Amino acid sequence: MWLTPVLAIALSLHPVYALWPIPSKLTNGSSIVVLSPAFHITVNVPHAPQDLLDAVSQTKTYLATDKLQRLVVDRGAADSTHFKTAHTVSSLTLSLESTGAGPVLPIASEAVKDFSDRSEGYTLAIPNNGGGAATISANSTLGLFRGLTTFSQLWYTYEGTTYTNVAPVSIVKDVPAYSYRGFMLDTSRNFFPVSDIKRTLDAMSWVKLNQFHWHITDSQSFPLSLPEFPELAQKGAYTSAEIYSPSDVQDIVSYAAARGIDVLMEIDTPGHTAIIGASHPEYIACDIEAPWATYANEPPAGQLRLADPATVNFTAALIGAAAKVLPSKYFSTGGDELNTQCYADDAVTQADLKKEGKTLGEALNTFTLATHGELEKLGKTPVVWEEMVLTQNLTLSNNTVVMVWISSDDAAAVAAKNFRLVHGPSDYFYLDCGAGEWIGADPTGNSWCDPFKTWQHAYTFDPLANISAAQAHLVLGGEQLLWTEQSDTNNLDSIVWPRAAVSAEVFWTGASRVWNGETLALDGREAQARLHDVRFRMVQRGVKAIPIQPMWCALRPGLCYLDS
Amino acid sequence: MWLTPVLAIALSLHPVYALWPIPSKLTNGSSIVVLSPAFHITVNVPHAPQDLLDAVSQTKTYLATDKLQRLVVDRGAADSTHFKTAHTVSSLTLSLESTGAGPVLPIASEAVKDFSDRSEGYTLAIPNNGGGAATISANSTLGLFRGLTTFSQLWYTYEGTTYTNVAPVSIVKDVPAYSYRGFMLDTSRNFFPVSDIKRTLDAMSWVKLNQFHWHITDSQSFPLSLPEFPELAQKGAYTSAEIYSPSDVQDIVSYAAARGIDVLMEIDTPGHTAIIGASHPEYIACDIEAPWATYANEPPAGQLRLADPATVNFTAALIGAAAKVLPSKYFSTGGDELNTQCYADDAVTQADLKKEGKTLGEALNTFTLATHGELEKLGKTPVVWEEMVLTQNLTLSNNTVVMVWISSDDAAAVAAKNFRLVHGPSDYFYLDCGAGEWIGADPTGNSWCDPFKTWQHAYTFDPLANISAAQAHLVLGGEQLLWTEQSDTNNLDSIVWPRAAVSAEVFWTGASRVWNGETLALDGREAQARLHDVRFRMVQRGVKAIPIQPMWCALRPGLCYLDS
Repeated sequence: MWLTPVLAIALSLHPVYALWPIPSKLTNGSSIVVLSPAFHITVNVPHAPQDLLDAVSQTKTYLATDKLQRLVVDRGAADSTHFKTAHTVSSLTLSLESTGAGPVLPIASEAVKDFSDRSEGYTLAIPNNGGGAATISANSTLGLFRGLTTFSQLWYTYEGTTYTNVAPVSIVKDVPAYSYRGFMLDTSRNFFPVSDIKRTLDAMSWVKLNQFHWHITDSQSFPLSLPEFPELAQKGAYTSAEIYSPSDVQDIVSYAAARGIDVLMEIDTPGHTAIIGASHPEYIACDIEAPWATYANEPPAGQLRLADPATVNFTAALIGAAAKVLPSKYFSTGGDELNTQCYADDAVTQADLKKEGKTLGEALNTFTLATHGELEKLGKTPVVWEEMVLTQNLTLSNNTVVMVWISSDDAAAVAAKNFRLVHGPSDYFYLDCGAGEWIGADPTGNSWCDPFKTWQHAYTFDPLANISAAQAHLVLGGEQLLWTEQSDTNNLDSIVWPRAAVSAEVFWTGASRVWNGETLALDGREAQARLHDVRFRMVQRGVKAIPIQPMWCALRPGLCYLDS
Repeated sequence: MWLTPVLAIALSLHPVYALWPIPSKLTNGSSIVVLSPAFHITVNVPHAPQDLLDAVSQTKTYLATDKLQRLVVDRGAADSTHFKTAHTVSSLTLSLESTGAGPVLPIASEAVKDFSDRSEGYTLAIPNNGGGAATISANSTLGLFRGLTTFSQLWYTYEGTTYTNVAPVSIVKDVPAYSYRGFMLDTSRNFFPVSDIKRTLDAMSWVKLNQFHWHITDSQSFPLSLPEFPELAQKGAYTSAEIYSPSDVQDIVSYAAARGIDVLMEIDTPGHTAIIGASHPEYIACDIEAPWATYANEPPAGQLRLADPATVNFTAALIGAAAKVLPSKYFSTGGDELNTQCYADDAVTQADLKKEGKTLGEALNTFTLATHGELEKLGKTPVVWEEMVLTQNLTLSNNTVVMVWISSDDAAAVAAKNFRLVHGPSDYFYLDCGAGEWIGADPTGNSWCDPFKTWQHAYTFDPLANISAAQAHLVLGGEQLLWTEQSDTNNLDSIVWPRAAVSAEVFWTGASRVWNGETLALDGREAQARLHDVRFRMVQRGVKAIPIQPMWCALRPGLCYLDS
């Protein structure tokens, strides 16, 4: 077997297979330490918030129920010969490094702060001595939560004994490279029950993803029920059972925040809105009964009549109604794939433009500033898709956050315009690519963004490619995305996991990390064994993440390479 | 909306959306008929076998629990206005057209007969009159079972009322175009619990697939436990929990047969056998510790030492031990991807060849005739992959059945050699294609058989392409296949269904069918709405089949085409 020298060395030095994302600074040994049956977690935090206590309780549950065996051929049998003589860890203490002036905030409050105000770093130590006291410290409850997540990834089980094989462990200090580490789910093309979203949020939290981008509506269905606009879901949801009620939204938002995740909701406008025509046909141009291919990239066609003042007011009020009940500082008004032919052929829009004395671009600017103004009134920052700054000539505030999706090449242009950006490029991060064409019955059709975006490919994504050092601060992070034309509850987990964990590491760990004093670049070969591990742990916790290789390979790191 | 004239006519004539495969001869109306609350099924069969009675019971359960709504925007609301005045169906009577001389055989016995002896055709009638008596008749219990399957697909539910909207229905007579309609599952690369296989068998039976090709072992693991060779699974299964015990195999075989499905087991030889080396290293050349890429198409390398008489005897005994407990008349000895370099570099094999005075090809012939001879002793017909007749110069009996996999183009060559064949071409029917490269961490890697094989593409498969009329009898049918390097219990349903239903129709209905007196070719556009329907019915019955389009499209047949 011919391993590359670097990999051979890495394997010999007891890599920490189970950690994902790999901490930015990690020192570890190769001793076995057993989790004491009397193991307990002490929360040394004054007036500890309930969500921190809940996270501690959940961690103890995972330690008891994960029962993950090591991915080696003997599954841990050799390790077990050391159990009797090994030191034990009998306690974990959580403490805050500085509590600041005010009261200790819950995780949920820390998670929804401005990107720049979030404190996710933590310090962790697992000793290999007779004392047996592990520690996690951080500047916030959110940091403590991230530390708990790392702690729970360090343990394996063999015949009832829970242990780690990499003691002592010292992480000083693990901080994320980027503040936005997300996952996007489209709940319009097909609907997902609340339980699916909660399970997804759990899985996200296990890999320290912190932003759930909820593309909640689109042209196909409007599952969001708002007290001010009940008709939109009543007429636009697929069925009355496929609606997110106000309490569902609060449930999801709370569940997310307690797990360190901010919910960025998107109501895509002015395109991708055909279904609004089911309750408000007067607001929609080139509606769904029209031949769609002229007016949209997929059926059905239909866009908001952006030049109509009534439609502008309606949209701004809709955005405001949705945004005001969310704790997030951010809200997306969408803005992708605007079809100008739709407006050119819409007599109402043409009349509106003439009446207002505006070009389409000017009307779009008015429309967008109206929705963004509504967000600003609520103290929130607007988020848009890249066309809003690259294709359209709008007077958007440079506070606006821009999502790059069409191509990874477009990030540089967004940065050149001095906008903060989130990477979600279709050529790296679209999880739906490669599943075939769904429009029509064309036997030669293929996925528009073929091929399938493998974890290996996504893992090579460079957030700073073609971004200057002076622009680097504009890169907030990135996300993998699932558009759901061919997904619903039946294949959510299998299409998302473990692939969506890739960007979790790319944007947490960053380009390089320090391991046992050595600076290492991210390396797909090294990552593969850990990705197996995080996937198996997800399965143990009830997420149907798929295998990335035959089990034979999972058990034999390094033996399934072309050159092995 | 611009429908093609043919499709517009088809939609206007009340297509039978729910039937899959569409019967070869079908006449139906457009009346609504309600299933009576007192509906009962009478089995007018002397000494009706228990599995037929069980199938009747299962049908009644499906009628009560499917609760499938029609895929139209109002989900059946307009239909419901007719419920009060509609005729009802109060009974279904099953009867045999001719019972022959002997006793009535159970479905399980009929399902495992020689291909040519299976009788799957049935006649079905649902009236639209006051009598309300539906009927199914057939020449065998297997035919009655197929009729029950069709019957259960005809019903929708709206607010508690179960009804059909296509009465009267007359099917005289629906017979399959091909006798082999299969699905292949690889249980070696990753393991699948018995419950997964049973669920798959259920789904297969719902679309009248009748052959479960069980690729049970391969180089990665040997999950088959045989009383004569317990060491193979003891040393070769991934874990002791990932073994098919003899009773598991009997359970699966019985479950399949009662659902009209024959189990064709495959123990792939002489390649794809590396894991046998875990218990019998002496039988394996270029074993798994060798650099695999020289000796196999994927890791690990390792092939049976086919020139060694002891290995030949072992393999023949192994094949015999597996085959003897199976009711099927068929058993596959595999034979794909033989790597000759492995033998060229194996000193033991070279010594064996020298000692026996044979070329490698001659030794392969001896090896293969030995395993096939064992099958023939058991009265069984051997099945092989295409290389055994196209690449190797063997003296195989022309009774051997040949599986075409490398390319659909190869079928003609197999037929030219006068072998019966089963279509399983990678370019149409490999369900795993398009999911990315799994070997190594190469960011540029792609699925070897990219792109993803869409249902639309598979649906255009022509079983008789380049096959002469004189050779047509050699085409037994075909199957879709799942190789499981990147699949396990977590994505089995989602990668298989509804796509594997495609070949069920291609090989049952054949190139054309008669509908309301008109001869129609299979047409993907017409099929799409029915495929939605069969997929939703699968979901209702607990199989996680995935959506092929947004729900918006599923509810609006004809509106999601490029020209609509």
